[in-house]
Amino acid sequence: MLTLHYLSDSRAHRIAWMLEELELEYTMKVHRRRPSGLAPRELERLHFLGKAPLLEDGDLVLAESAHIVEHLLDTRAPQLRPDPASAPEQARSHRYWLHFAEASFAPPLIMKHLFDKVRERTPSLLRPVTGIVPSMLGKAYLDDTLAKHAAFVDSHLRDREFFVGDAPSGADFMMIFPCEAAAARYGGRYSALLDYVRRVHARPAYKRARKRAGVPYMYD
Amino acid sequence: MLTLHYLSDSRAHRIAWMLEELELEYTMKVHRRRPSGLAPRELERLHFLGKAPLLEDGDLVLAESAHIVEHLLDTRAPQLRPDPASAPEQARSHRYWLHFAEASFAPPLIMKHLFDKVRERTPSLLRPVTGIVPSMLGKAYLDDTLAKHAAFVDSHLRDREFFVGDAPSGADFMMIFPCEAAAARYGGRYSALLDYVRRVHARPAYKRARKRAGVPYMYD
Repeated sequence: MLTLHYLSDSRAHRIAWMLEELELEYTMKVHRRRPSGLAPRELERLHFLGKAPLLEDGDLVLAESAHIVEHLLDTRAPQLRPDPASAPEQARSHRYWLHFAEASFAPPLIMKHLFDKVRERTPSLLRPVTGIVPSMLGKAYLDDTLAKHAAFVDSHLRDREFFVGDAPSGADFMMIFPCEAAAARYGGRYSALLDYVRRVHARPAYKRARKRAGVPYMYD
Repeated sequence: MLTLHYLSDSRAHRIAWMLEELELEYTMKVHRRRPSGLAPRELERLHFLGKAPLLEDGDLVLAESAHIVEHLLDTRAPQLRPDPASAPEQARSHRYWLHFAEASFAPPLIMKHLFDKVRERTPSLLRPVTGIVPSMLGKAYLDDTLAKHAAFVDSHLRDREFFVGDAPSGADFMMIFPCEAAAARYGGRYSALLDYVRRVHARPAYKRARKRAGVPYMYD
């Protein structure tokens, strides 16, 4: 028995997409962020860190997107994980993207997102002042890093329908979230990345997940 | 033939520790950060993203800490990865920490670190101004998140010598870097976390890695 704890505007959407793509039976519990933007306290009753996604599988409560994706690959869809013996390069690529998504690609995008939130919550007269640190960090680190990451992903996707192989794999379920964030922010500059996000958004399983959650999603 | 590209003050140190712990033969190439803090351009000749650690294994050039750790576990030390068949809970725990290290624990610590760098590079009269955004983000998100993460890790380590099992595993090689960062910043508040970092720093393999790199490390 699978229960997905889905938090509005969060990485939980990637797990919903995966569950729909695998056509698994599951219950979805939708939680909404507090006005502060933080996750609601009720998630802390399930897991110390109180974040989402969380997946309950029987007695197990699993946190951390990639851990959930790997658990579902192992227990429900081993065929989606490239076999290191017969396809070593695909297996390495699959694992690389599984880690790259959250360890490298997402953090600077999230930092930009948080800077935007600060900006939104700042009276307009003060924005030149609150823009100083984001602008310093942007010039010193963020902008170059993000441009490099996006170009890297864009070039990988230029001749591929999915990250690895010819069907969605764990790499896609992990990469979709930062790809959506990058496409929303820089899409025009990276057409293969933007096309990829549009292809995923057009998939029936992705649409079913959106419909089932029934709450707005910032990357719709 | 293994070659580790070691960048000063970086996550590369965890891979050096792992290679020493496994007593593998390898070449270490030490690269120094530019005055801006960025990695030197020469790393871009090896990998598009130009970051470290990078591990060359024969013709392969591997990037992304966790990908390198998993590659070494697979090819050089499968006994360090808990067996899902005979120890399913340990295997899940191992994989959880492998992802948690960079996906959850490191990003807010890195954000704090970048804010510190901005502060250092700001003339002191301007610091109240450049402190506004870090302080707003700290109150809204960073401080609570970091306190939760550190308490979570601290509580896990309270009755354990290592993250999983009774010898260093992939989970330790991944977790040491953000644990060092958290201990340097908040150590006094989290004694199990601090003791863990001290235990690792006292290991002969860790010391050999530090000596071999021969450059200062911010978490010494």
